[in-house]
Amino acid sequence: MFYHVKDLQYNARVSRPDPAFATLLLEQFGGANGELAAALRYFSQAFGAKNPYPDKYDLLMDIATEEFSHLEIVGATIQMLLTGINGDLKNAAENSEIMKLMNGKAAKEEVIHQGMVAPQFLIGSAGGPCYTNSQGVPWTAAYINGDGTGELSADLRSNIGAESRAKMVYEYLLQFTEDPYVKETLRFLMTREVAHFQMFEAALGTIQPNFPPGVLQSDPRFSNVYFNMSSGNDYTGPWNTGKSTQFGEEIQYVDDPIAYVIKTNGLLEHEAAGTDRTEASVQKMNKELSKIKSAEVNGANPPGPMQWNQDLDGVDDDAREASKKEYAKNKSKK
Amino acid sequence: MFYHVKDLQYNARVSRPDPAFATLLLEQFGGANGELAAALRYFSQAFGAKNPYPDKYDLLMDIATEEFSHLEIVGATIQMLLTGINGDLKNAAENSEIMKLMNGKAAKEEVIHQGMVAPQFLIGSAGGPCYTNSQGVPWTAAYINGDGTGELSADLRSNIGAESRAKMVYEYLLQFTEDPYVKETLRFLMTREVAHFQMFEAALGTIQPNFPPGVLQSDPRFSNVYFNMSSGNDYTGPWNTGKSTQFGEEIQYVDDPIAYVIKTNGLLEHEAAGTDRTEASVQKMNKELSKIKSAEVNGANPPGPMQWNQDLDGVDDDAREASKKEYAKNKSKK
Amino acid sequence: MFYHVKDLQYNARVSRPDPAFATLLLEQFGGANGELAAALRYFSQAFGAKNPYPDKYDLLMDIATEEFSHLEIVGATIQMLLTGINGDLKNAAENSEIMKLMNGKAAKEEVIHQGMVAPQFLIGSAGGPCYTNSQGVPWTAAYINGDGTGELSADLRSNIGAESRAKMVYEYLLQFTEDPYVKETLRFLMTREVAHFQMFEAALGTIQPNFPPGVLQSDPRFSNVYFNMSSGNDYTGPWNTGKSTQFGEEIQYVDDPIAYVIKTNGLLEHEAAGTDRTEASVQKMNKELSKIKSAEVNGANPPGPMQWNQDLDGVDDDAREASKKEYAKNKSKK
Amino acid sequence: MFYHVKDLQYNARVSRPDPAFATLLLEQFGGANGELAAALRYFSQAFGAKNPYPDKYDLLMDIATEEFSHLEIVGATIQMLLTGINGDLKNAAENSEIMKLMNGKAAKEEVIHQGMVAPQFLIGSAGGPCYTNSQGVPWTAAYINGDGTGELSADLRSNIGAESRAKMVYEYLLQFTEDPYVKETLRFLMTREVAHFQMFEAALGTIQPNFPPGVLQSDPRFSNVYFNMSSGNDYTGPWNTGKSTQFGEEIQYVDDPIAYVIKTNGLLEHEAAGTDRTEASVQKMNKELSKIKSAEVNGANPPGPMQWNQDLDGVDDDAREASKKEYAKNKSKK
Amino acid sequence: MFYHVKDLQYNARVSRPDPAFATLLLEQFGGANGELAAALRYFSQAFGAKNPYPDKYDLLMDIATEEFSHLEIVGATIQMLLTGINGDLKNAAENSEIMKLMNGKAAKEEVIHQGMVAPQFLIGSAGGPCYTNSQGVPWTAAYINGDGTGELSADLRSNIGAESRAKMVYEYLLQFTEDPYVKETLRFLMTREVAHFQMFEAALGTIQPNFPPGVLQSDPRFSNVYFNMSSGNDYTGPWNTGKSTQFGEEIQYVDDPIAYVIKTNGLLEHEAAGTDRTEASVQKMNKELSKIKSAEVNGANPPGPMQWNQDLDGVDDDAREASKKEYAKNKSKK
Amino acid sequence: MFYHVKDLQYNARVSRPDPAFATLLLEQFGGANGELAAALRYFSQAFGAKNPYPDKYDLLMDIATEEFSHLEIVGATIQMLLTGINGDLKNAAENSEIMKLMNGKAAKEEVIHQGMVAPQFLIGSAGGPCYTNSQGVPWTAAYINGDGTGELSADLRSNIGAESRAKMVYEYLLQFTEDPYVKETLRFLMTREVAHFQMFEAALGTIQPNFPPGVLQSDPRFSNVYFNMSSGNDYTGPWNTGKSTQFGEEIQYVDDPIAYVIKTNGLLEHEAAGTDRTEASVQKMNKELSKIKSAEVNGANPPGPMQWNQDLDGVDDDAREASKKEYAKNKSKK
Repeated sequence: MFYHVKDLQYNARVSRPDPAFATLLLEQFGGANGELAAALRYFSQAFGAKNPYPDKYDLLMDIATEEFSHLEIVGATIQMLLTGINGDLKNAAENSEIMKLMNGKAAKEEVIHQGMVAPQFLIGSAGGPCYTNSQGVPWTAAYINGDGTGELSADLRSNIGAESRAKMVYEYLLQFTEDPYVKETLRFLMTREVAHFQMFEAALGTIQPNFPPGVLQSDPRFSNVYFNMSSGNDYTGPWNTGKSTQFGEEIQYVDDPIAYVIKTNGLLEHEAAGTDRTEASVQKMNKELSKIKSAEVNGANPPGPMQWNQDLDGVDDDAREASKKEYAKNKSKK
Repeated sequence: MFYHVKDLQYNARVSRPDPAFATLLLEQFGGANGELAAALRYFSQAFGAKNPYPDKYDLLMDIATEEFSHLEIVGATIQMLLTGINGDLKNAAENSEIMKLMNGKAAKEEVIHQGMVAPQFLIGSAGGPCYTNSQGVPWTAAYINGDGTGELSADLRSNIGAESRAKMVYEYLLQFTEDPYVKETLRFLMTREVAHFQMFEAALGTIQPNFPPGVLQSDPRFSNVYFNMSSGNDYTGPWNTGKSTQFGEEIQYVDDPIAYVIKTNGLLEHEAAGTDRTEASVQKMNKELSKIKSAEVNGANPPGPMQWNQDLDGVDDDAREASKKEYAKNKSKK
Repeated sequence: MFYHVKDLQYNARVSRPDPAFATLLLEQFGGANGELAAALRYFSQAFGAKNPYPDKYDLLMDIATEEFSHLEIVGATIQMLLTGINGDLKNAAENSEIMKLMNGKAAKEEVIHQGMVAPQFLIGSAGGPCYTNSQGVPWTAAYINGDGTGELSADLRSNIGAESRAKMVYEYLLQFTEDPYVKETLRFLMTREVAHFQMFEAALGTIQPNFPPGVLQSDPRFSNVYFNMSSGNDYTGPWNTGKSTQFGEEIQYVDDPIAYVIKTNGLLEHEAAGTDRTEASVQKMNKELSKIKSAEVNGANPPGPMQWNQDLDGVDDDAREASKKEYAKNKSKK
Repeated sequence: MFYHVKDLQYNARVSRPDPAFATLLLEQFGGANGELAAALRYFSQAFGAKNPYPDKYDLLMDIATEEFSHLEIVGATIQMLLTGINGDLKNAAENSEIMKLMNGKAAKEEVIHQGMVAPQFLIGSAGGPCYTNSQGVPWTAAYINGDGTGELSADLRSNIGAESRAKMVYEYLLQFTEDPYVKETLRFLMTREVAHFQMFEAALGTIQPNFPPGVLQSDPRFSNVYFNMSSGNDYTGPWNTGKSTQFGEEIQYVDDPIAYVIKTNGLLEHEAAGTDRTEASVQKMNKELSKIKSAEVNGANPPGPMQWNQDLDGVDDDAREASKKEYAKNKSKK
Repeated sequence: MFYHVKDLQYNARVSRPDPAFATLLLEQFGGANGELAAALRYFSQAFGAKNPYPDKYDLLMDIATEEFSHLEIVGATIQMLLTGINGDLKNAAENSEIMKLMNGKAAKEEVIHQGMVAPQFLIGSAGGPCYTNSQGVPWTAAYINGDGTGELSADLRSNIGAESRAKMVYEYLLQFTEDPYVKETLRFLMTREVAHFQMFEAALGTIQPNFPPGVLQSDPRFSNVYFNMSSGNDYTGPWNTGKSTQFGEEIQYVDDPIAYVIKTNGLLEHEAAGTDRTEASVQKMNKELSKIKSAEVNGANPPGPMQWNQDLDGVDDDAREASKKEYAKNKSKK
Repeated sequence: MFYHVKDLQYNARVSRPDPAFATLLLEQFGGANGELAAALRYFSQAFGAKNPYPDKYDLLMDIATEEFSHLEIVGATIQMLLTGINGDLKNAAENSEIMKLMNGKAAKEEVIHQGMVAPQFLIGSAGGPCYTNSQGVPWTAAYINGDGTGELSADLRSNIGAESRAKMVYEYLLQFTEDPYVKETLRFLMTREVAHFQMFEAALGTIQPNFPPGVLQSDPRFSNVYFNMSSGNDYTGPWNTGKSTQFGEEIQYVDDPIAYVIKTNGLLEHEAAGTDRTEASVQKMNKELSKIKSAEVNGANPPGPMQWNQDLDGVDDDAREASKKEYAKNKSKK
């Protein structure tokens, strides 16, 4: 259950209206790497974590709620930067005088700002934030639906990437305003991405093993092969020479992939090299991890009557117990 | 600033997993008329309301926050209805046994449920809610960006329409589950749409005049004309005969629009009839309302240094006062 | 069946080319609240209305057809405002001289117009209208698919909201052009939204009861509760005090929702207050309305052979009669 | 201006409800190659054609209007195929009995139909057509915005392609219904695509020259080169040997593009072969066509006051004449 | 299998940075008619062509691969035109100085360029290409999914249309830059569209019959009828008089479609005229073509074990033979 | 420049047609975490890397090209799984017999497969792959545009997340087919995600410092604060206690954020604790890194005439040298 207090988490301020910067700032309101994307990403990941991993659920809901609060900070800042537009448009018997009251701006700003006021502020929302990016593209869940995979070790890595990107957008935005109040707010928000990055990283570390994400092990034949698919001006680095970062397998470099693929009948005849892992060891690990991880989740989520809130009052405990037993019985039969 | 408590506003429960109904229920999670749409619609409308109309801001934020809480209820219900999928997929060394543990279902349900489990639950989120509608279409802000117009009397009417639609979706959903726990939750959520409808209606009544929305009056020549654009099997009703609902103007029925348009040189030579309003009275009203409404908004939003939180500590009050004066001076010059 | 005459419903004129205003005007061609959205919204709602409610079908098709005609007016105006672009681009052996032939513009306009010519006019459509909004976002049926719910009392309320929004966009657009010809066209179009608003309102009044939309009554326990979800600077209004607008129930104000939800076990133990409606009275009403409304629709739409045009020539009447009887028989068995 | 008569252009009939086929048929209502796409494609192309090419404008508006009429036929058919759903959902006090009244179906149909009823028909539109394709994806103008290029010879070719695709969709749909009434309607609609194909082809033939589309001629060095970019199992055909179809240039086959590109410094040193066209002849043609085609368009669209309807009453003819003269003067100065 | 060499197919160069033109050029990177659309369109069409028509598969893969190479050329050009942005943004401790280092520009360019730098270059990609069009709309497969119909004669016609459109976009783009290096690259790319057009046309000619696309013949009653749906200022041309282009049928002109439709009971009573084709001849052709074309495809694609690469080593040939026989047996039973 | 050989990188095979699994497999063809997304993500990131970091450019192009080759493998597998559909649809004179020739399936498979054949395979592509996910949603660049930030340390982290997600989708898909040939292909593809993960991780390690991504350091006051935004059932972990992962700062836990925010005037009065970093140290680092990183990029990309291919023949070297000098001069003036 959400609750709201009218104070912002960070007391956002602006020095004067600036519709052009408000337009750029939309990127953090309704953009691909903005606060709405962040809040909704963690919120949806949290549902599946609740029962097996209540500590990660707590973490995800803490950060999701903070991101909603950041969305509000960004929206409030945009609203203040657009001050004057709505009032002016209400003066509808006159043609628009928008942007006439703003103090003179330095020439430097003009180069960037000219023509960059989103039309949606003038004839759509009439001076308020919309869920679009800085170019007017409506926010879409396509940005984030793929980021909830039902596997925490994958989701946390996506989150680390997402916080990195959001940090960059704030870093860039900071270079397009000279308003000290706006800068201090942006800096707070940028810093929180750095903080969240480290929290997700810490959480990832508590899941063991966490590589590869999920249950199934990689095929030892193809896990350490590097295909040189782009020829000319080739470089060597730890990604195509030496040992792989997680498994420590010896990297196998295929210099001429076309020839090699034809020679090996489309890799069907390629054989493992540079690794101690075998098909047998992989299958064994697959089975063991399957057992452990499915028990972990299924054990915490028996398929009978259930409720979300903690106290189980009002649910028929007997039916629930019966359901648990039936589940266990079915499982033992497999 | 948002805050979260781990209890749901309504203690949602389910009797047993039902992935097919979970698929339908997505419509209220990430569909056009779902809870995410509702929450974000009111949340964005609230920003512009804050200063001139703090009472409406309070209303909008109360309901927006409740809708976020409803989004959580829907998500939690979907998660519970998908119980078993995630655990089963973790048993990755075996082929999926999903849906094997569910108790037998009545034949009636099967007709509807067959084949209706969203693939995203099986190979995407692996048993958790996503921001899509019941057919997998990602949520898009295109659903709602147009609903924030910077004019409360328009926005509240959009909200009344939106609550009506959301109510219908719950009414339909109720017919596709037999789980009494799920039914009680859906009924709570459906009822809240009915409650919100009346709240928005009450708020609309406090804005006077509220028709037409905005400032500009309609042209008396065209405000009460009915064009019979679709011929054959024509009907008469209070919409094309008698007096118009808001202005009480005598409706003018144009039976043969093609002939009439050609006769009047594309309506340029059409003249007003059945109304007391005149071009002069309209222009007068336009100017008066412009003055009142723009003063209302501009007065509450002087364009100098500003902050969102109530207490003004930390902002240079002198600069703010200076800005207010400059604004007033500019305004008097127009 | 549609038919077209080459004269516009309103004889649109422009004084001179103005690609910047053409860009803004796209909002009414392919925007969320534009004419295409309006025309297609009413057109799809009309299909379901035809048989049970032929008078509403007539109304919806009259207005849908008028909106298509308005779409044409907007498109024609955009085309005229872009005069010169296509011809100039045909002079392809030279670099583009676009916008060189326009007469000098007042300084005021320039502030707004600079940089606001949609690239799609220059390198896409080469000087013609496209189905995008003013920022180039392609029109999507996501704007309107949710507005057809198969329940007229909901659809008409959505339409009232939609006409309100479209009116506002014209009000804003009027402030960004000084061309008197364009202004007269916009004013005609704005006025028609006001006219349609009243028509839909009149139609809604002929449906009784029309609240809540649909069949199912709201739960008396939750229909009049107000949750104060956003704390700080709280306001009182007719939406959270006194009686609700439609049911006249006494509003119950929950000041501290978190405490209350925990105390009532997630509202499961909350009880009705301030209302005369009871669970029994609601269930009775649900059943009665179900019977009446389903008979209304089913009676007008027997599931046998059918045709759309009125005269039934060519359809096997015997088969149709047989189908009607079978339907009645099945229904009586329930 | 559009006008509507309540009779369909083709008297569509159905034998009995069939929600599964209604779902497939959505492809022609709101799909990429459906009737809405067709109608709106030709409608937007028409605007730019009106003045310089009023005959093509007439053709485009004739077909656009017919496609709107076909959209209505498809929608009416879907509505009839969904008969029973809306009425059943109004019986909201009972669980849904949808699809119970349909007569027995052949086993063959079941294989395809199972599980293929769009959820939108059940919990969204409640038994009416929506602007989506058969999988629920909302119609988007992204399907067609690129098809209006401001160059008729390109647009007509796009239309020929579009009619070909629409024909195929009807051909496929015909294989998924056994209802003779539905089949006759689909066959009518399919045939009209074939008819329109030939009309567009005839119109294209009246534009001379029509290749390449537009004004600028292709570079003689690269116009007849074939790069064998995909190696292995290579084939020879009139596309990579002999003479090119339009220019009759001798095709130059580059068997090993990588080697050739490196040898010619990224083609900078490649020289023309197998063609009589030269850089000089191309530049001459560019200039001549530029002059002719821009004059054609500009002559028909002087940039002064203008109106859409034919009769010029109400427009200041003097201003218009002045504008024409100014345009001519400017043009002569270049 | 794809392979990459670091040299571009055409050695793209630029004279100096020009972020405004880079913004326009995005239309060919991620726009509706751009190189990504082209490459992916032909790539997906190729899969289905491989077995029955390996020569067309070769053609489609040759051109698809070239289009990917063109995508790279466009991306590289955009990257060079944005030089300076990324480096400047790395100087993050200072406000952005973007666009300060570019040499003075001619006044003519400024008119077009002002305000036209995509915000995504400044705060998103920080100076690199993105998959959007020139207005920031993300590339969507909605542009092209409809262009693969599983029928080559339709797909090739779509491709001819697509190449025409892409040619026009290059023709327009050429008018918005004065950089001779960029112009030479654009001209190469434009020319290749002209070359591909002719290749697709040549390939279409090798399919006989290729009209109408697919198998089913058009209904002789409706194939040559012209409906005059848009009245006023009507024109005559080879599309509504004389003989149709492909069938050579005498065109039947319906001057007043409304009257005619009503008279013929929605065309049900309309009869064929001006054609030698009959219902019987059409049905015969349908059956013959069905047999030929399905045998063509099915013969090349027996439904047993299969592999993509040519050599069949590793597949159980016996199983494959058994499958072929079973298929033949089933087919003979029909 | 891309090149193609007709052999797949991995010799994909299938045992028999399976349209239902083909539908699920679309997730890897045109889904959010599929191969097209991967290929295009790395391809666009590569452009900006080329000059300053040619080794990372090589890595990104190697993997991008491999992902295009994987896209082809997935498409080929889908095509083979759909065998029979296209041929059957060509038999258009008969109703569709699709899916009749497939051998009997185990009951287990049926549960999942029923009703899950994408309509697009039947009436759209007629048996070939489309760029949609498993639910028919068209691929959109919204999935990936945000993943190219012009900062390699952020992009590589996004890629690590992306490879994790793609691995999971393959792991899930493997549980929905029993075809051993398809399983071996999926396993190869899954393994390559694991391989790429490690390559990106290795590359990230060579960038130092790589935290935080970009240039600007986080504010020491907010970098180590944990806000307990979701109350009830709170957990402790290394993310909210002890030291932060990267900076090793002592985490500050704010148990009651509402009270704390109000007390600190919206955090304006909050002070740093548990860290050695100071405002001064941060500003110093910002300046130093700005200098280093901008020089790195700018040095490799002087803004004069440039070309993409390595050899500079044909570009005016003098102009280039002059441009470099001018750049250096401007820079020194700042």
